[in-house]
Amino acid sequence: MKNFDFEEERVKQEILKLGAKRVLLQLPEGLKPEAPRLAKIIEKTGALPIVSADPCYGACDLATEAAESLGVDMIIHYGHAKLLKHAPVPAVYVEARATVNVNEAIEKALPLLRKWQKIGLTTTVQHVQTLDAVRETLVRAGKTVIIGDTGRLGYPGQVIGCDYTNAKSILKDVEAFLFVGGGRFHALGVALSTSKPTIVADPYNNQAFSVADDAERIIRQRWRSIEEAEKARSFGILIGLKPGQKNMEQALQIRQKFEEKGKTACLLALKEVTPEALMEFPTIEAYVNTACLRLSVEDAQRYRVPVLSKNEALVVVGEMSWEELCRKGLFEN
Amino acid sequence: MKNFDFEEERVKQEILKLGAKRVLLQLPEGLKPEAPRLAKIIEKTGALPIVSADPCYGACDLATEAAESLGVDMIIHYGHAKLLKHAPVPAVYVEARATVNVNEAIEKALPLLRKWQKIGLTTTVQHVQTLDAVRETLVRAGKTVIIGDTGRLGYPGQVIGCDYTNAKSILKDVEAFLFVGGGRFHALGVALSTSKPTIVADPYNNQAFSVADDAERIIRQRWRSIEEAEKARSFGILIGLKPGQKNMEQALQIRQKFEEKGKTACLLALKEVTPEALMEFPTIEAYVNTACLRLSVEDAQRYRVPVLSKNEALVVVGEMSWEELCRKGLFEN
Repeated sequence: MKNFDFEEERVKQEILKLGAKRVLLQLPEGLKPEAPRLAKIIEKTGALPIVSADPCYGACDLATEAAESLGVDMIIHYGHAKLLKHAPVPAVYVEARATVNVNEAIEKALPLLRKWQKIGLTTTVQHVQTLDAVRETLVRAGKTVIIGDTGRLGYPGQVIGCDYTNAKSILKDVEAFLFVGGGRFHALGVALSTSKPTIVADPYNNQAFSVADDAERIIRQRWRSIEEAEKARSFGILIGLKPGQKNMEQALQIRQKFEEKGKTACLLALKEVTPEALMEFPTIEAYVNTACLRLSVEDAQRYRVPVLSKNEALVVVGEMSWEELCRKGLFEN
Repeated sequence: MKNFDFEEERVKQEILKLGAKRVLLQLPEGLKPEAPRLAKIIEKTGALPIVSADPCYGACDLATEAAESLGVDMIIHYGHAKLLKHAPVPAVYVEARATVNVNEAIEKALPLLRKWQKIGLTTTVQHVQTLDAVRETLVRAGKTVIIGDTGRLGYPGQVIGCDYTNAKSILKDVEAFLFVGGGRFHALGVALSTSKPTIVADPYNNQAFSVADDAERIIRQRWRSIEEAEKARSFGILIGLKPGQKNMEQALQIRQKFEEKGKTACLLALKEVTPEALMEFPTIEAYVNTACLRLSVEDAQRYRVPVLSKNEALVVVGEMSWEELCRKGLFEN
């Protein structure tokens, strides 16, 4: 996987520095194929590497329970910047910065940005090191470039699956966003959080495209989900069991709001929110997901019944209007 | 779900006895649809019920980590007899005994048993209360009936997905087995552990049938898996993260045996062994599953590469013969 920097030397140094004897290696799905190769490299330090093979989609999902259960001395977590402030096991984060050149994708994005003058720049941790150069390219093309920084994430302009505050913080100052990175997932998050035109510059395929159609499709789908959930009588309130996804208090509050409206609301705790897991409860007519806001939106069509965010649930119980929800953005917590 | 006794009154009493304020309710997949109804009943004690919605296939999978993470005072575990001797959170087991009448299925099984005189009787915990009556029916039909009891499980004649010692202990004294219960899964376990003809009396469909063809198909499939694994150079050794499935020492031993044979062996820890999880490691050519012996045998065709049991791995490294493996039974640990 030549597109990413796995920082093998730093990883070895960190293991030796801590004198770790047993190490848990955790990678998100896209990087997992590298795990056996990295394990071999870790072995050279004398430490025993164990690869976490459960799904991982973010730093919210640091494998602390597995680490404690396996008695490892440290976790090497790839692909995400640090998110959890405290972890019961020392964790080293390897952000897996992309080594691909972004120039061609940016050049292809410029024509798609021609209608707008003020551009907000966003990206994932894999490409934060390119933002200065991208800014320069855009400025040379006559654009005004703004990069948001709320300090909530590790880097200016950075977004993660469930946090678009760096984009939202400059919402009023820009006409459109340029997202640098692979795929539609994060760019859609920007579009749905800001309601602004969002153009992707994808350096892996050297392509540029708008996510406007996808964003519109998802907005329509969310509206239908809320309408359908308004008719439901029996709700499941999902509590995430991943360390950075547990919102017990939020789940209890939502449950109470539904019960006050005469609805039935059952608390369901789980590690992985999947269509298969929810299929096991045929009497539940709609869910509220307090675990990971993004996944149930992304995969909505795979679920038998609506899976709402907390704010969408507030629309259902009449405590928030659809307009307010759209203004806040779909992923506001 | 009228076929099972959910012991609602005892559950309420146990909660009140312990003074539990927060309760985790865990059910296997087949019983999960009852969870919202049971949660409502638990609410009447004043305790807050939370349903575990992650997959559960046995008492090996007691949701202790979820219980600790959610701060519950007790776990109500349905569908399995107690397996783990120690749990960090008090657990009450509700075995969910079946209330269906087994007579018709047994009558239908009798003609299928006509060739054999000495019959071993096995069942799951759901039907252990029927074994005395079933024995009488068989004795009236002229059979000699033996029920094994090694004391490893809760009840004489009981089998679970990974323990057929009650059947194996009477192997030499019987000509065939009668399994009382639903589906093929456990009966196949009996057949594969004993290499004896095994007849199912399924009281849910009032049907009786032999699992001989299925057992033969699986034996052939295991042989092919071993042959294929013998050609592999890169192995993944799976370590289960469920409390009753973790065999760290076994995994380390197997890893060493493979490395001594010049193979690469990477340790992979995970909670759910699924085809999707293993798909993430395209360079690994075969796995050894030290977690749950049964699942990788049952679902073999869903996996891209062979997934072996510990003993099958010993065949691959030349420390056990195929004949010895068959004699021990596929699920011997």
